[in-house]
Amino acid sequence: METPFGKAEEVLGGSASYFSIAASFFTNIRLVAVVGEDFPREYLDFFRERGVDLQGLQRLPGRTFRWRGKYSRDLNERQTIDTCLNVFEDFRPKIPEQYRSSQYIFLANIDPDLQLEVLKQVKAPKLTAGDTMNFWIEGKLRSVKETLRAMDILTINQEEAEQLSNEDNLVRAARKISSLGPKTIIIKRGEYGALMFTAGSIFSAPAYPLEAVCDPTGAGDSFAGGFLGYLARSRKQGDRSLRKAVIFGSVMASFCVEDFSLNRLKSLSYPEIEERFREFKELTIF
Amino acid sequence: METPFGKAEEVLGGSASYFSIAASFFTNIRLVAVVGEDFPREYLDFFRERGVDLQGLQRLPGRTFRWRGKYSRDLNERQTIDTCLNVFEDFRPKIPEQYRSSQYIFLANIDPDLQLEVLKQVKAPKLTAGDTMNFWIEGKLRSVKETLRAMDILTINQEEAEQLSNEDNLVRAARKISSLGPKTIIIKRGEYGALMFTAGSIFSAPAYPLEAVCDPTGAGDSFAGGFLGYLARSRKQGDRSLRKAVIFGSVMASFCVEDFSLNRLKSLSYPEIEERFREFKELTIF
Repeated sequence: METPFGKAEEVLGGSASYFSIAASFFTNIRLVAVVGEDFPREYLDFFRERGVDLQGLQRLPGRTFRWRGKYSRDLNERQTIDTCLNVFEDFRPKIPEQYRSSQYIFLANIDPDLQLEVLKQVKAPKLTAGDTMNFWIEGKLRSVKETLRAMDILTINQEEAEQLSNEDNLVRAARKISSLGPKTIIIKRGEYGALMFTAGSIFSAPAYPLEAVCDPTGAGDSFAGGFLGYLARSRKQGDRSLRKAVIFGSVMASFCVEDFSLNRLKSLSYPEIEERFREFKELTIF
Repeated sequence: METPFGKAEEVLGGSASYFSIAASFFTNIRLVAVVGEDFPREYLDFFRERGVDLQGLQRLPGRTFRWRGKYSRDLNERQTIDTCLNVFEDFRPKIPEQYRSSQYIFLANIDPDLQLEVLKQVKAPKLTAGDTMNFWIEGKLRSVKETLRAMDILTINQEEAEQLSNEDNLVRAARKISSLGPKTIIIKRGEYGALMFTAGSIFSAPAYPLEAVCDPTGAGDSFAGGFLGYLARSRKQGDRSLRKAVIFGSVMASFCVEDFSLNRLKSLSYPEIEERFREFKELTIF
């Protein structure tokens, strides 16, 4: 990864990593993912230290997925330099027996057909959230729509929400996407924060005004981790809890981007999370 | 004016119009501006009905300033088709004797040398706010900086803040601009709301999520009108009042963009302003 602030090579990344580590500050996490034989043992130890259950982590012959990218000077554009799918190419998520009663499900941004396969393997989730991206909206719209029907909450980037709904206006975009399934739509806007649309209300969350953003990679998955992690811990789903969850998601995203890879989440403590939550209050109160 | 939602020709516009009408809902306004002989009487009547003092309005031989523009489909880009300075070309603001004791001054976005001339004519303002734009930052940076030294509050677009400070990061941009004079910097971000930087804190205000934005023209000046109008009425300048003022500014901007020209502000009532202020609370509370 290369940003205007430096370079980090062969570092831990991926939706499953960011989501599960961010969520692990709030609740117990069961991870489903795939790595190759080269995946460093120290990363496995890191997940275990954070209490992440790794029964669902497949270790296959071959190399782990790799991605190489570069951010523009203002961090608003990202260029993919190289993608090596490796063991990810034939990944079929297998949900361990002990995971099947899980109540809170997050479907990170992979092939929507795989997202559906995951859902078929869990018994009766209380809350299903997920993400998607332009690549699937363009190439597998039917499958994306089928998956959306099974989602309670969709987290999605602004541009992708516009693309999925074919609407420029976010209020109309959210309403259209909601008619496809998810009752709650969270539109992520990077440095501009997030908007949450529920049946009865709209909630606008700011981004934390950081003086130095080092690397935006993983912000969306860290957001989802903080968001769903908080909901799973609170065991409530009312508007008030959803709003607090959006702020906890924003808090985790704000820490994530302070350093490369998961470095900042690695050194993070729960009191720091609480302190930043209070700063979000200060930032918005009037 | 042409937007994806229609066209409006030969309609009232201009910073002085948007600012003074928006502010007139909160306090008494003294306007300083110039029009030509063709300026319609009905517009003068409109200002008078809203209690705007027109002693500072010069009426010169020739035609009124005109501007013709077109917005892109997503309203994020504006193209100037034609600008006719007309009587505006030789405008030298003259402050009537009765205005000189004014305590709240707003220097709308004109030549910074003229902004300074205005300031020299007022006695002891309690609060001076102003705006500027890329055209002056590029062409008259020295004068812009001289004017900034005399300002308490600067309202400025995000791109222009970045340009003026030569910083991509808004926290650093605001700090740098603040060192040039204004203690309070309000960075306007269009559909993303506004950020206010004061010595001790940062306040993030959302934009009101409108389902249909008709014409963004005048939003910034309507914001400034609501902001400064509220401060003049409250006669307070603490952090709490500044934050409420930012929201009242955002409220006025949100009404402004609902229709062409000043049409929505024309039909607006104070209870509607209060109601939308409450909706901003709903939008941000957690």
